[in-house]
Amino acid sequence: MELTEAGPEAGPGTTRPGGRTARVRAAVLRAAGDVLAEQGFAHLDLADIARRAEVGKTTVYRRWGSVTGLVTDLLLDMAQQSVPRTETGSLLGDLKANTGLVRRTLADPRQGALFKAVIAAATCDPKAAEALHGFYAVRVEEWAPCVEQAAARGEVPGGTDAHEVIRAASAPLYYRLLTTALPLDEAAADRAATAAAAAARAGAYVREA
Amino acid sequence: MELTEAGPEAGPGTTRPGGRTARVRAAVLRAAGDVLAEQGFAHLDLADIARRAEVGKTTVYRRWGSVTGLVTDLLLDMAQQSVPRTETGSLLGDLKANTGLVRRTLADPRQGALFKAVIAAATCDPKAAEALHGFYAVRVEEWAPCVEQAAARGEVPGGTDAHEVIRAASAPLYYRLLTTALPLDEAAADRAATAAAAAARAGAYVREA
Repeated sequence: MELTEAGPEAGPGTTRPGGRTARVRAAVLRAAGDVLAEQGFAHLDLADIARRAEVGKTTVYRRWGSVTGLVTDLLLDMAQQSVPRTETGSLLGDLKANTGLVRRTLADPRQGALFKAVIAAATCDPKAAEALHGFYAVRVEEWAPCVEQAAARGEVPGGTDAHEVIRAASAPLYYRLLTTALPLDEAAADRAATAAAAAARAGAYVREA
Repeated sequence: MELTEAGPEAGPGTTRPGGRTARVRAAVLRAAGDVLAEQGFAHLDLADIARRAEVGKTTVYRRWGSVTGLVTDLLLDMAQQSVPRTETGSLLGDLKANTGLVRRTLADPRQGALFKAVIAAATCDPKAAEALHGFYAVRVEEWAPCVEQAAARGEVPGGTDAHEVIRAASAPLYYRLLTTALPLDEAAADRAATAAAAAARAGAYVREA
Protein backbone atom coordinates (compact mmCIF):
# COMPACT_ATOMS: atom_id res chain seq x y z
CA MET A 1 0.00 0.00 0.00
CA GLU A 2 1.70 3.10 -1.20
CA LEU A 3 0.92 6.54 0.13
CA THR A 4 -0.01 9.06 -2.53
CA GLU A 5 -1.44 12.54 -2.32
CA ALA A 6 -4.96 11.13 -2.66
CA GLY A 7 -4.44 8.80 0.31
CA PRO A 8 -3.51 5.15 0.79
CA GLU A 9 -3.92 3.19 -2.44
CA ALA A 10 -6.59 0.77 -1.27
CA GLY A 11 -6.39 -2.58 -3.04
CA PRO A 12 -9.59 -4.33 -4.12
CA GLY A 13 -9.66 -6.43 -0.94
CA THR A 14 -9.13 -3.52 1.45
CA THR A 15 -12.03 -2.68 3.72
CA ARG A 16 -12.77 0.66 5.28
CA PRO A 17 -14.63 1.19 8.53
CA GLY A 18 -18.38 1.69 8.33
CA GLY A 19 -21.52 -0.24 7.57
CA ARG A 20 -23.13 -1.30 4.32
CA THR A 21 -23.61 2.28 3.07
CA ALA A 22 -19.90 3.01 3.55
CA ARG A 23 -18.95 -0.28 1.86
CA VAL A 24 -21.19 0.49 -1.12
CA ARG A 25 -19.68 3.97 -1.40
CA ALA A 26 -16.12 2.59 -1.22
CA ALA A 27 -16.86 -0.03 -3.92
CA VAL A 28 -18.52 2.48 -6.24
CA LEU A 29 -15.79 5.12 -5.82
CA ARG A 30 -13.12 2.47 -6.35
CA ALA A 31 -14.84 1.37 -9.59
CA ALA A 32 -15.23 5.00 -10.71
CA GLY A 33 -11.54 5.62 -10.05
CA ASP A 34 -10.62 2.47 -12.01
CA VAL A 35 -12.70 3.51 -15.05
CA LEU A 36 -11.34 7.07 -14.95
CA ALA A 37 -7.76 5.81 -14.71
CA GLU A 38 -8.21 3.19 -17.43
CA GLN A 39 -10.41 5.00 -19.93
CA GLY A 40 -10.67 8.67 -18.97
CA PHE A 41 -13.63 10.87 -18.22
CA ALA A 42 -15.40 10.46 -21.57
CA HIS A 43 -16.17 6.79 -20.87
CA LEU A 44 -17.61 7.12 -17.37
CA ASP A 45 -21.04 5.44 -17.32
CA LEU A 46 -23.08 4.85 -14.16
CA ALA A 47 -24.44 1.46 -15.28
CA ASP A 48 -20.91 0.21 -16.02
CA ILE A 49 -19.68 1.48 -12.62
CA ALA A 50 -22.57 -0.30 -10.85
CA ARG A 51 -21.69 -3.56 -12.64
CA ARG A 52 -17.99 -3.29 -11.74
CA ALA A 53 -18.78 -2.39 -8.12
CA GLU A 54 -21.33 -5.24 -7.92
CA VAL A 55 -23.90 -2.77 -6.65
CA GLY A 56 -27.48 -2.30 -7.92
CA LYS A 57 -27.81 0.23 -10.76
CA THR A 58 -30.75 1.89 -8.99
CA THR A 59 -28.63 2.47 -5.89
CA VAL A 60 -25.93 4.19 -7.94
CA TYR A 61 -28.44 6.38 -9.85
CA ARG A 62 -30.33 7.26 -6.66
CA ARG A 63 -27.24 8.11 -4.64
CA TRP A 64 -24.98 9.83 -7.21
CA GLY A 65 -27.49 10.85 -9.90
CA SER A 66 -24.95 11.57 -12.63
CA VAL A 67 -21.36 11.15 -13.72
CA THR A 68 -20.66 14.64 -12.35
CA GLY A 69 -22.13 13.64 -8.99
CA LEU A 70 -19.86 10.62 -8.91
CA VAL A 71 -16.70 12.58 -9.85
CA THR A 72 -17.58 15.18 -7.20
CA ASP A 73 -17.96 12.52 -4.50
CA LEU A 74 -14.74 10.80 -5.59
CA LEU A 75 -12.82 14.10 -5.22
CA LEU A 76 -14.41 14.66 -1.79
CA ASP A 77 -13.28 11.18 -0.76
CA MET A 78 -9.76 11.79 -2.15
CA ALA A 79 -9.56 14.99 -0.08
CA GLN A 80 -10.78 13.20 3.08
CA GLN A 81 -8.37 10.28 2.61
CA SER A 82 -5.41 12.47 1.67
CA VAL A 83 -2.27 12.12 3.74
CA PRO A 84 -0.97 14.59 6.34
CA ARG A 85 2.10 16.71 5.65
CA THR A 86 5.61 15.87 6.80
CA GLU A 87 7.61 18.17 9.11
CA THR A 88 11.37 18.15 8.57
CA GLY A 89 12.43 21.35 10.35
CA SER A 90 13.40 23.32 7.22
CA LEU A 91 11.41 24.88 4.40
CA LEU A 92 13.44 23.10 1.72
CA GLY A 93 13.04 19.74 3.49
CA ASP A 94 9.29 20.24 3.87
CA LEU A 95 8.85 21.35 0.25
CA LYS A 96 10.89 18.36 -0.95
CA ALA A 97 8.60 16.08 1.08
CA ASN A 98 5.65 17.80 -0.62
CA THR A 99 6.94 17.61 -4.18
CA GLY A 100 8.12 14.03 -3.60
CA LEU A 101 4.56 13.08 -2.61
CA VAL A 102 3.05 14.94 -5.58
CA ARG A 103 5.59 13.32 -7.93
CA ARG A 104 4.90 9.78 -6.64
CA THR A 105 1.16 10.42 -7.02
CA LEU A 106 1.40 11.72 -10.59
CA ALA A 107 4.02 9.15 -11.67
CA ASP A 108 1.91 6.25 -10.33
CA PRO A 109 0.15 4.78 -13.40
CA ARG A 110 -3.31 4.54 -11.79
CA GLN A 111 -3.18 7.76 -9.74
CA GLY A 112 -1.55 9.76 -12.53
CA ALA A 113 -4.22 8.71 -15.01
CA LEU A 114 -6.91 9.40 -12.41
CA PHE A 115 -5.62 12.93 -11.78
CA LYS A 116 -5.44 13.63 -15.53
CA ALA A 117 -9.02 12.38 -15.88
CA VAL A 118 -10.45 14.54 -13.07
CA ILE A 119 -8.58 17.60 -14.38
CA ALA A 120 -10.08 16.91 -17.83
CA ALA A 121 -13.54 16.44 -16.27
CA ALA A 122 -13.18 19.79 -14.50
CA THR A 123 -12.45 21.59 -17.79
CA CYS A 124 -15.92 20.76 -19.11
CA ASP A 125 -18.11 20.61 -16.00
CA PRO A 126 -18.48 23.45 -13.47
CA LYS A 127 -19.50 21.12 -10.60
CA ALA A 128 -16.55 18.82 -11.21
CA ALA A 129 -14.35 21.95 -11.35
CA GLU A 130 -15.69 23.10 -7.98
CA ALA A 131 -14.97 19.69 -6.46
CA LEU A 132 -11.46 19.66 -7.99
CA HIS A 133 -10.75 23.14 -6.62
CA GLY A 134 -11.97 21.86 -3.23
CA PHE A 135 -9.52 18.95 -3.34
CA TYR A 136 -6.57 21.26 -4.06
CA ALA A 137 -7.70 23.78 -1.44
CA VAL A 138 -7.56 20.97 1.15
CA ARG A 139 -4.08 19.91 0.03
CA VAL A 140 -2.71 23.49 -0.03
CA GLU A 141 -4.23 24.17 3.40
CA GLU A 142 -2.61 21.01 4.77
CA TRP A 143 0.88 22.09 3.67
CA ALA A 144 0.67 25.89 4.17
CA PRO A 145 1.82 25.71 7.84
CA CYS A 146 5.29 24.59 6.70
CA VAL A 147 5.74 28.03 5.12
CA GLU A 148 4.30 29.80 8.18
CA GLN A 149 6.77 27.89 10.35
CA ALA A 150 9.59 28.89 7.98
CA ALA A 151 8.53 32.54 8.34
CA ALA A 152 8.54 32.15 12.16
CA ARG A 153 12.08 30.70 11.93
CA GLY A 154 13.13 33.65 9.75
CA GLU A 155 13.77 31.49 6.69
CA VAL A 156 11.40 33.55 4.51
CA PRO A 157 10.25 37.18 4.84
CA GLY A 158 7.17 38.02 6.92
CA GLY A 159 4.04 38.47 4.79
CA THR A 160 4.98 35.54 2.54
CA ASP A 161 1.82 34.03 1.05
CA ALA A 162 2.07 30.43 2.27
CA HIS A 163 -0.61 29.16 -0.10
CA GLU A 164 1.21 30.63 -3.12
CA VAL A 165 4.47 28.93 -2.08
CA ILE A 166 2.75 25.53 -1.81
CA ARG A 167 1.03 25.98 -5.16
CA ALA A 168 4.35 27.08 -6.71
CA ALA A 169 6.03 23.85 -5.55
CA SER A 170 3.38 21.62 -7.20
CA ALA A 171 2.82 23.64 -10.38
CA PRO A 172 5.92 22.56 -12.37
CA LEU A 173 5.08 18.87 -11.85
CA TYR A 174 1.52 19.26 -13.12
CA TYR A 175 2.71 21.42 -16.02
CA ARG A 176 5.28 18.76 -16.90
CA LEU A 177 2.65 16.00 -16.73
CA LEU A 178 0.12 17.84 -18.89
CA THR A 179 2.21 19.70 -21.48
CA THR A 180 5.32 17.55 -22.02
CA ALA A 181 6.37 13.91 -22.43
CA LEU A 182 9.28 14.46 -20.01
CA PRO A 183 9.61 12.01 -17.11
CA LEU A 184 8.29 12.94 -13.67
CA ASP A 185 11.55 11.94 -12.04
CA GLU A 186 12.99 12.76 -8.62
CA ALA A 187 15.21 15.46 -10.14
CA ALA A 188 12.09 17.29 -11.36
CA ALA A 189 10.50 17.04 -7.90
CA ASP A 190 13.65 18.28 -6.13
CA ARG A 191 14.06 21.12 -8.63
CA ALA A 192 10.45 22.24 -8.07
CA ALA A 193 11.00 22.31 -4.29
CA THR A 194 14.40 24.03 -4.55
CA ALA A 195 13.01 26.70 -6.90
CA ALA A 196 9.96 27.42 -4.71
CA ALA A 197 12.16 27.66 -1.59
CA ALA A 198 14.69 29.96 -3.34
CA ALA A 199 11.96 32.24 -4.71
CA ALA A 200 10.26 32.34 -1.29
CA ARG A 201 13.55 33.27 0.43
CA ALA A 202 14.05 36.03 -2.18
CA GLY A 203 10.62 37.46 -1.26
CA ALA A 204 8.82 36.57 -4.50
CA TYR A 205 5.69 35.49 -2.61
CA VAL A 206 5.39 38.42 -0.19
CA ARG A 207 1.81 39.75 -0.35
CA GLU A 208 1.48 43.20 -1.87
CA ALA A 209 0.52 45.92 0.60
CA MET B 1 -7.10 41.84 -32.94
CA GLU B 2 -5.33 40.86 -29.74
CA LEU B 3 -2.07 38.97 -29.64
CA THR B 4 -2.16 35.80 -27.58
CA GLU B 5 0.29 32.94 -27.23
CA ALA B 6 -1.53 31.04 -29.97
CA GLY B 7 -1.16 33.91 -32.43
CA PRO B 8 -3.33 36.78 -33.63
CA GLU B 9 -6.97 36.21 -32.72
CA ALA B 10 -8.35 36.10 -36.24
CA GLY B 11 -11.93 37.33 -36.48
CA PRO B 12 -14.43 35.53 -38.71
CA GLY B 13 -13.79 37.96 -41.61
CA THR B 14 -10.01 37.72 -41.47
CA THR B 15 -8.33 36.12 -44.46
CA ARG B 16 -4.96 34.41 -44.50
CA PRO B 17 -2.67 34.13 -47.49
CA GLY B 18 -3.03 31.06 -49.70
CA GLY B 19 -5.42 29.51 -52.16
CA ARG B 20 -8.66 27.62 -51.71
CA THR B 21 -7.01 24.79 -49.74
CA ALA B 22 -5.57 27.25 -47.24
CA ARG B 23 -8.93 29.04 -46.95
CA VAL B 24 -10.74 25.76 -46.31
CA ARG B 25 -8.19 24.82 -43.65
CA ALA B 26 -8.49 28.23 -41.97
CA ALA B 27 -12.31 28.02 -41.93
CA VAL B 28 -12.33 24.46 -40.56
CA LEU B 29 -9.71 25.16 -37.87
CA ARG B 30 -11.56 28.34 -36.88
CA ALA B 31 -14.81 26.34 -36.51
CA ALA B 32 -13.01 23.60 -34.57
CA GLY B 33 -11.53 26.21 -32.21
CA ASP B 34 -14.98 27.77 -31.74
CA VAL B 35 -16.61 24.44 -30.84
CA LEU B 36 -13.74 23.50 -28.49
CA ALA B 37 -13.92 26.88 -26.77
CA GLU B 38 -17.73 26.86 -26.52
CA GLN B 39 -18.43 23.23 -25.71
CA GLY B 40 -15.19 21.43 -24.90
CA PHE B 41 -13.56 18.39 -26.43
CA ALA B 42 -16.40 15.93 -25.75
CA HIS B 43 -18.70 17.69 -28.24
CA LEU B 44 -16.34 17.93 -31.21
CA ASP B 45 -18.05 16.38 -34.26
CA LEU B 46 -16.67 16.55 -37.80
CA ALA B 47 -20.09 16.96 -39.48
CA ASP B 48 -20.91 19.89 -37.16
CA ILE B 49 -17.51 21.50 -37.88
CA ALA B 50 -18.07 21.15 -41.64
CA ARG B 51 -21.49 22.83 -41.34
CA ARG B 52 -20.08 25.73 -39.28
CA ALA B 53 -17.13 26.17 -41.64
CA GLU B 54 -19.45 25.98 -44.67
CA VAL B 55 -17.23 23.29 -46.13
CA GLY B 56 -18.33 19.92 -47.56
CA LYS B 57 -18.47 17.11 -44.99
CA THR B 58 -16.55 14.79 -47.37
CA THR B 59 -13.69 17.31 -47.57
CA VAL B 60 -13.39 17.44 -43.79
CA TYR B 61 -13.51 13.64 -43.38
CA ARG B 62 -11.01 13.13 -46.22
CA ARG B 63 -8.55 15.73 -45.00
CA TRP B 64 -8.69 15.35 -41.20
CA GLY B 65 -10.16 11.84 -40.82
CA SER B 66 -11.08 12.14 -37.15
CA VAL B 67 -11.56 14.51 -34.25
CA THR B 68 -8.01 13.68 -33.15
CA GLY B 69 -6.68 14.58 -36.61
CA LEU B 70 -8.47 17.91 -36.39
CA VAL B 71 -7.18 18.74 -32.89
CA THR B 72 -3.66 17.77 -33.98
CA ASP B 73 -3.82 20.09 -37.00
CA LEU B 74 -5.29 22.91 -34.89
CA LEU B 75 -2.36 22.65 -32.46
CA LEU B 76 0.11 22.62 -35.37
CA ASP B 77 -1.53 25.79 -36.70
CA MET B 78 -1.47 27.40 -33.24
CA ALA B 79 2.26 26.67 -33.01
CA GLN B 80 2.91 28.09 -36.51
CA GLN B 81 0.86 31.24 -35.84
CA SER B 82 2.27 31.79 -32.34
CA VAL B 83 3.91 35.13 -31.67
CA PRO B 84 7.65 35.79 -31.33
CA ARG B 85 9.23 36.57 -27.96
CA THR B 86 9.94 40.05 -26.66
CA GLU B 87 13.47 41.19 -25.77
CA THR B 88 13.70 43.68 -22.91
CA GLY B 89 17.38 43.43 -21.95
CA SER B 90 16.85 41.75 -18.57
CA LEU B 91 15.76 38.26 -17.52
CA LEU B 92 13.00 39.59 -15.27
CA GLY B 93 11.71 41.88 -18.04
CA ASP B 94 11.73 39.05 -20.57
CA LEU B 95 10.02 36.61 -18.20
CA LYS B 96 7.38 39.23 -17.35
CA ALA B 97 6.73 39.67 -21.07
CA ASN B 98 6.36 35.88 -21.31
CA THR B 99 4.03 35.42 -18.33
CA GLY B 100 2.02 38.50 -19.40
CA LEU B 101 1.43 36.87 -22.80
CA VAL B 102 0.54 33.51 -21.22
CA ARG B 103 -1.80 35.25 -18.76
CA ARG B 104 -3.61 37.21 -21.50
CA THR B 105 -3.99 34.01 -23.50
CA LEU B 106 -5.41 31.98 -20.62
CA ALA B 107 -7.58 34.84 -19.29
CA ASP B 108 -9.10 35.48 -22.72
CA PRO B 109 -12.51 33.72 -22.67
CA ARG B 110 -12.16 32.04 -26.08
CA GLN B 111 -8.44 31.21 -25.90
CA GLY B 112 -8.60 30.13 -22.24
CA ALA B 113 -11.48 27.74 -22.97
CA LEU B 114 -9.66 26.49 -26.07
CA PHE B 115 -6.48 25.75 -24.11
CA LYS B 116 -8.46 23.92 -21.41
CA ALA B 117 -10.17 21.87 -24.13
CA VAL B 118 -6.95 20.83 -25.89
CA ILE B 119 -5.32 19.95 -22.55
CA ALA B 120 -8.38 17.80 -21.75
CA ALA B 121 -8.21 16.21 -25.21
CA ALA B 122 -4.55 15.37 -24.65
CA THR B 123 -5.34 13.52 -21.40
CA CYS B 124 -7.39 10.92 -23.28
CA ASP B 125 -5.75 10.73 -26.71
CA PRO B 126 -2.04 9.96 -27.31
CA LYS B 127 -1.97 11.71 -30.72
CA ALA B 128 -3.58 14.86 -29.33
CA ALA B 129 -1.07 14.66 -26.45
CA GLU B 130 1.83 14.47 -28.91
CA ALA B 131 0.50 17.51 -30.79
CA LEU B 132 0.01 19.42 -27.52
CA HIS B 133 3.57 18.58 -26.43
CA GLY B 134 4.72 19.83 -29.84
CA PHE B 135 2.93 23.15 -29.34
CA TYR B 136 4.57 23.72 -25.95
CA ALA B 137 7.98 22.60 -27.26
CA VAL B 138 7.72 25.35 -29.92
CA ARG B 139 6.74 27.97 -27.34
CA VAL B 140 9.52 26.97 -24.90
CA GLU B 141 12.09 26.92 -27.73
CA GLU B 142 10.97 30.41 -28.80
CA TRP B 143 11.57 31.88 -25.32
CA ALA B 144 14.62 29.85 -24.20
CA PRO B 145 17.15 32.32 -25.74
CA CYS B 146 16.13 34.96 -23.17
CA VAL B 147 17.61 32.73 -20.46
CA GLU B 148 20.72 32.00 -22.55
CA GLN B 149 21.21 35.76 -23.02
CA ALA B 150 20.78 36.25 -19.25
CA ALA B 151 23.49 33.62 -18.66
CA ALA B 152 25.78 35.43 -21.15
CA ARG B 153 25.14 38.71 -19.23
CA GLY B 154 25.98 36.92 -15.96
CA GLU B 155 22.45 37.28 -14.57
CA VAL B 156 22.11 33.53 -13.97
CA PRO B 157 24.78 30.84 -13.41
CA GLY B 158 26.29 29.03 -16.41
CA GLY B 159 24.68 25.63 -17.03
CA THR B 160 21.21 26.97 -16.25
CA ASP B 161 18.61 24.89 -18.10
CA ALA B 162 16.85 27.57 -20.18
CA HIS B 163 13.90 25.33 -21.06
CA GLU B 164 13.23 24.57 -17.39
CA VAL B 165 13.22 28.30 -16.54
CA ILE B 166 10.68 29.04 -19.29
CA ARG B 167 8.48 26.14 -18.21
CA ALA B 168 8.77 27.30 -14.58
CA ALA B 169 7.48 30.77 -15.51
CA SER B 170 4.33 29.39 -17.20
CA ALA B 171 3.57 26.54 -14.81
CA PRO B 172 1.94 28.54 -11.96
CA LEU B 173 -0.50 30.18 -14.39
CA TYR B 174 -1.64 26.86 -15.83
CA TYR B 175 -1.84 25.32 -12.35
CA ARG B 176 -3.95 28.28 -11.20
CA LEU B 177 -6.25 27.96 -14.24
CA LEU B 178 -6.78 24.21 -13.85
CA THR B 179 -6.85 23.63 -10.08
CA THR B 180 -8.26 26.84 -8.56
CA ALA B 181 -10.99 29.41 -9.12
CA LEU B 182 -8.50 32.24 -8.42
CA PRO B 183 -8.28 35.03 -10.99
CA LEU B 184 -5.50 35.01 -13.59
CA ASP B 185 -4.61 38.61 -12.80
CA GLU B 186 -1.49 40.62 -13.59
CA ALA B 187 -0.20 40.11 -10.05
CA ALA B 188 -0.21 36.34 -10.62
CA ALA B 189 1.69 36.77 -13.91
CA ASP B 190 4.28 39.11 -12.35
CA ARG B 191 4.71 36.79 -9.36
CA ALA B 192 5.33 33.79 -11.66
CA ALA B 193 8.02 35.74 -13.57
CA THR B 194 9.62 37.14 -10.41
CA ALA B 195 9.75 33.70 -8.78
CA ALA B 196 11.25 32.00 -11.87
CA ALA B 197 13.89 34.77 -12.20
CA ALA B 198 14.77 34.61 -8.48
CA ALA B 199 15.05 30.81 -8.51
CA ALA B 200 17.16 30.95 -11.70
CA ARG B 201 19.50 33.54 -10.15
CA ALA B 202 19.83 31.28 -7.07
CA GLY B 203 20.94 28.42 -9.33
CA ALA B 204 17.83 26.24 -8.94
CA TYR B 205 17.81 25.35 -12.65
CA VAL B 206 21.51 24.55 -13.10
CA ARG B 207 21.79 21.16 -14.84
CA GLU B 208 23.20 18.38 -12.71
CA ALA B 209 26.65 17.21 -13.71
